[in-house]
Amino acid sequence: MLGHIARRLGSNGLKGISPQQLLPKETHRHLQSSLDTIRPISTVSLWPFSSQPRDFSQPNSSWSPEMQKVYDHYYALCDTDTENGEGKKRPWRKLPSYNRSIKYATGGIHLSKLIQAKARLFTRNVKEQGATFEYVVFVNKEEKRCVCVFQAGRLLEGAPGHVHGGAIATMIDTVTGTLAGFLSGPIMTANLNIDYRSPMPLDSVVLIHSALDRIERRKTYITSKVTSTDESKLYTEATALFVSISVGHLFGSRN
Amino acid sequence: MLGHIARRLGSNGLKGISPQQLLPKETHRHLQSSLDTIRPISTVSLWPFSSQPRDFSQPNSSWSPEMQKVYDHYYALCDTDTENGEGKKRPWRKLPSYNRSIKYATGGIHLSKLIQAKARLFTRNVKEQGATFEYVVFVNKEEKRCVCVFQAGRLLEGAPGHVHGGAIATMIDTVTGTLAGFLSGPIMTANLNIDYRSPMPLDSVVLIHSALDRIERRKTYITSKVTSTDESKLYTEATALFVSISVGHLFGSRN
Repeated sequence: MLGHIARRLGSNGLKGISPQQLLPKETHRHLQSSLDTIRPISTVSLWPFSSQPRDFSQPNSSWSPEMQKVYDHYYALCDTDTENGEGKKRPWRKLPSYNRSIKYATGGIHLSKLIQAKARLFTRNVKEQGATFEYVVFVNKEEKRCVCVFQAGRLLEGAPGHVHGGAIATMIDTVTGTLAGFLSGPIMTANLNIDYRSPMPLDSVVLIHSALDRIERRKTYITSKVTSTDESKLYTEATALFVSISVGHLFGSRN
Repeated sequence: MLGHIARRLGSNGLKGISPQQLLPKETHRHLQSSLDTIRPISTVSLWPFSSQPRDFSQPNSSWSPEMQKVYDHYYALCDTDTENGEGKKRPWRKLPSYNRSIKYATGGIHLSKLIQAKARLFTRNVKEQGATFEYVVFVNKEEKRCVCVFQAGRLLEGAPGHVHGGAIATMIDTVTGTLAGFLSGPIMTANLNIDYRSPMPLDSVVLIHSALDRIERRKTYITSKVTSTDESKLYTEATALFVSISVGHLFGSRN
């Protein structure tokens, strides 16, 4: 039962789950590493519904010049991915971001129409661009860290003119969970410990840095901090703990 | 500058801030305790824009029978508030919930049109009833605790079919912040430490219990747990720390 799949793993909720864990074996041509499961499938698939879901982490007209500038900076550092595999190898990669975590799986765009079709990822649930969470996650596999550029929209208010603490927590969970799933495969959030250092005005553009602290058996520890884009101002610091889960657990078993 | 008001204080972001801190003295007829600032003003005011903002924590057609049942249970325990002050005194009170924290202040409904008019409280930013956060907070002043009944809508998804960890964090911040502001006046969140014990399916109705742990000078410590409505299942446990802020701090001063 997909309804029993354990809870999310960062914004890319299913990024640690390989397609063969979700779908019958015969629909897959390629066994993929957890790294590959978050890459849009560019190879030919026998699965008839493998059209690409929309990537919400693309530049759009709601982005401020500051947001665009930081995006351009990291995008220029990224690996380029071409059809024939001849892209340039660089340390960073931009991760796609869909409006349901199930879409990260091959055939997920189809499954998402069958299973609770009206559900939407919390961070991508408002259609109006720029109104809530505008963000892109860049990951550096070698250094086991990632950076998210995040622009906080007008619908994320807490106190007048400032971002709600829950919206900041949501982004920290999202970014640390993305990194943990990237490094450790299927995981679920076990703990978030967040220190709020300074209030964040609405419309701010900030960086959310996350790095691997350590992995101990089934536990992946991630640290995170939220800063201004020039990194001179600290808004928030956090630690996060994720626990690896078995495929059985995902499907409702406790084993 | 209202734009410099420090960040939110739970769902009721300005509940600890008395109207006289936001508006010129001459617009106020009554000095009010922090308790009174979160009560809809039923007394006559000279302020010309004191019409009541809409209370989003009223029963509506999106509520499941379980949500309505829990609401009815706590509502029956509530103090009744009448125009002539002859209501029955009971230990619980239902708190109102607006779509901007500034509306808790007298005249706030007017100010909200002047100051960043398009901003909306993060937990009340989607018009469709039932799609995101449906919740009501009941507070027990004598016991220094509160209970929130929360129904998680389809737009709060993390992993398929389950509530995003950030949405749970948002509600914990909201409910613990509401209690802290209720007890300590103007505060801001300093720390949230959240243990996720069990994944929460979408459409769940849960209770968020929050209680005062202790107050040490400017620090208010709150504990919280999220359970099923019969309290047999534990979803989440958390502690929260709030720091009292001065009016000067709210308006941009560090003193």
